[in-house]
Amino acid sequence: MPEQELVIYNATVVTMDADSTILPRGYVMVRDGGIAAVEAGDPPATAGGERLDAEGGLVLPGLINTHTHAAMTLFRGLADDLPLMQWLESYIFPAEARMDAAFVHTGARLACAEMIRAGITCFCDMYLFAHEVARAARDCGVRAVVGEVLYDFPSPNYGPIEAGFAYTRELIETWRGDPLVSVAVQPHAPYTCRPELLREADRIARHYDVPLVMHLAETDGETRQIQERYGLRPVAHLDRLGLLHANLIADHAVWLTADEIALMAQRGVRVAHCVESNMKLASGVAQLPELLAAGVTVGLGTDGCASNNDLDLFGEMDTVAKLHKVQRLDPTVMDAATVLRLATIEGARVLGLAHRIGSLETGKRADLIVVDTRQPHLTPLYNPVSHLVYAARSADVRHTVIDGRLVMRDRRLLTIDLASLLDQARAKAALVTSWVA
Amino acid sequence: MPEQELVIYNATVVTMDADSTILPRGYVMVRDGGIAAVEAGDPPATAGGERLDAEGGLVLPGLINTHTHAAMTLFRGLADDLPLMQWLESYIFPAEARMDAAFVHTGARLACAEMIRAGITCFCDMYLFAHEVARAARDCGVRAVVGEVLYDFPSPNYGPIEAGFAYTRELIETWRGDPLVSVAVQPHAPYTCRPELLREADRIARHYDVPLVMHLAETDGETRQIQERYGLRPVAHLDRLGLLHANLIADHAVWLTADEIALMAQRGVRVAHCVESNMKLASGVAQLPELLAAGVTVGLGTDGCASNNDLDLFGEMDTVAKLHKVQRLDPTVMDAATVLRLATIEGARVLGLAHRIGSLETGKRADLIVVDTRQPHLTPLYNPVSHLVYAARSADVRHTVIDGRLVMRDRRLLTIDLASLLDQARAKAALVTSWVA
Repeated sequence: MPEQELVIYNATVVTMDADSTILPRGYVMVRDGGIAAVEAGDPPATAGGERLDAEGGLVLPGLINTHTHAAMTLFRGLADDLPLMQWLESYIFPAEARMDAAFVHTGARLACAEMIRAGITCFCDMYLFAHEVARAARDCGVRAVVGEVLYDFPSPNYGPIEAGFAYTRELIETWRGDPLVSVAVQPHAPYTCRPELLREADRIARHYDVPLVMHLAETDGETRQIQERYGLRPVAHLDRLGLLHANLIADHAVWLTADEIALMAQRGVRVAHCVESNMKLASGVAQLPELLAAGVTVGLGTDGCASNNDLDLFGEMDTVAKLHKVQRLDPTVMDAATVLRLATIEGARVLGLAHRIGSLETGKRADLIVVDTRQPHLTPLYNPVSHLVYAARSADVRHTVIDGRLVMRDRRLLTIDLASLLDQARAKAALVTSWVA
Repeated sequence: MPEQELVIYNATVVTMDADSTILPRGYVMVRDGGIAAVEAGDPPATAGGERLDAEGGLVLPGLINTHTHAAMTLFRGLADDLPLMQWLESYIFPAEARMDAAFVHTGARLACAEMIRAGITCFCDMYLFAHEVARAARDCGVRAVVGEVLYDFPSPNYGPIEAGFAYTRELIETWRGDPLVSVAVQPHAPYTCRPELLREADRIARHYDVPLVMHLAETDGETRQIQERYGLRPVAHLDRLGLLHANLIADHAVWLTADEIALMAQRGVRVAHCVESNMKLASGVAQLPELLAAGVTVGLGTDGCASNNDLDLFGEMDTVAKLHKVQRLDPTVMDAATVLRLATIEGARVLGLAHRIGSLETGKRADLIVVDTRQPHLTPLYNPVSHLVYAARSADVRHTVIDGRLVMRDRRLLTIDLASLLDQARAKAALVTSWVA
């Protein structure tokens, strides 16, 4: 049972509510995992439970990572700066072919440790052995949307695709009603999934009323490949299959025409924008301002650590704000307030969780972080939103609360034995080294 | 008098020498401010003085910030996401018109605190009241190349340009022979400095044999303005004035033709590449791979905090590696090893200090940092160079040593009373708020 009551006071409260309200000195009261009050001033002296003095820091909703492959923490820095196919074929595929459930469990826990320390309180994961990702998230106390990656070739986890569908159904049924973990159906991408696979995945998602998540239009090469194979670009291909609907979360969505953006907006497709991965893999620059102008709901994602190489939405925010400015030589695009919304409330919308998380409002679940502003690089403080996007770093996150539970206090992880976890990660890395040798 | 001896052991030593030697387990011995030994294995038990156990972390040369305006820390987050002229005319110019020596001293000390904590051991600064920047650097124990910014209009510091030349001469003479601080002559840019000013600045630099530092070709607008005024693009304009020589350090150098790059290489002009500033101000993307291919010596710079908004070369390295990849859709450009060289030994070359700093080699001054790798986001560790560029953050810097002196130990600043400095910074910020109201 988590603490019944927790109050965080002496804070600048960045609510991310519809009016982007900021309380220059206020408090947040947490009761039974939910937000009981968000108020200006000091809390009543009678407020029970645990009291956390933010010491003038910022309190804001936990950041939401709308796309990652958590267990790939174990591949971070294994190989970089290579052409995509060489990187996949010489390193990632051989390693993934050998991995097992225990490997994914360790990698996902390592990711949870990193995310809690970076102020990420919710992530959407696509990977193999998704049950293990779910268990890792639950054990670490991190909110997650997980899904087993589905594709045409045999999987190191489930084997043939029929077993993948069965695994997915069982995953959904197992985790139904869990306070932290939910499940999505996650076919990999149009270029790795035949139309029949995609249709069946969509049927399962509809049957269980869970999101459908897919990589979409990540590279120009993929776009051309789909066009050659099906005579249509990826978005039109999905549309013909009946998959371009409001239940679809499209990861990356880099290579889009204006018409495709308009169609995605019309259909209510949501997008996970993974700017640093797109840069490092040289995939391309997504048309983020156009997506937003068209009314598409967009959140931010880190992608996996093999292609980024971190799980750090403070870094992503900074890069999102800067890249799109230089891309169009206009310093006014992707202003800090817009970017901070993408990392919080809009991320919640992407995952279909905005009724529960994404802002500090009474009645929502208590997923929140405290940022320590008593730092040279955050002093003076003219504008909290500017600092959060352009100057704060993940290491400035002092406390992390998820579903009302304090999972990090003064940068000490409370749900993870870090030293032991790092030892386990090193042991798994020794395996990886032997696999790719 | 600094400690006579200091040995850092149990470290992976990333030397950045000509062979990019990495010692998987080694030590660095420091004596009288210089590097006495860089060796594999453990130090002799007889090694005297202070012994620092790096606990398996990375030891590398301190990072070198080749272009900043340190005191602008006090303007960080004051205004963002605005068109350049509105930002300058409504915020920066009014504030700078009112500032004084004490303001610059506080801002520069705040910058030193941030840089020491970010593993930056040397910076090249262009600003007003440069004596104060020099004093701040000396007092904080940070290596610096400072210079008074010179331009056609009256300066809030020295008044008319003749006084600016006198101030610069006196600056050079005052700091000559200082172990940490040296001086450069720093005309602002071709568009803010008449030809006579530039020629006189160059004469002073030659007379005293100090570098000439200037913003060059930062924006397309500047390039067109110079062309309209002088009938030549900025590089050709400087060439006609006789200023395009091996003593020139060009800040930014974004808008260049292939011929201009070749000419700069031929003349030995050095470049401070400020990628995040160029992105946030939407100046453009410098042709960094082409500059390097042509043989131009390039280092990295943060620029000032009003346009970045931090002094963090770990962030700059990550962005440099990623931006140029996506810019040309090639994941192999600006690999991690190349980028780490820019932030260390190449930065030293840019500042003309490579005989003294930039690598861990016997006989050089002991400017070095220890990065703590016992972190979720740095575990496992396959490749130290990959982690330093793509995953490590400034907060992972545990110890900082400059000229043999430990200026940060376990993230505690040893040369700065941080709480008092942050209070002073807040007081200056209150002034700024009143100035721009």
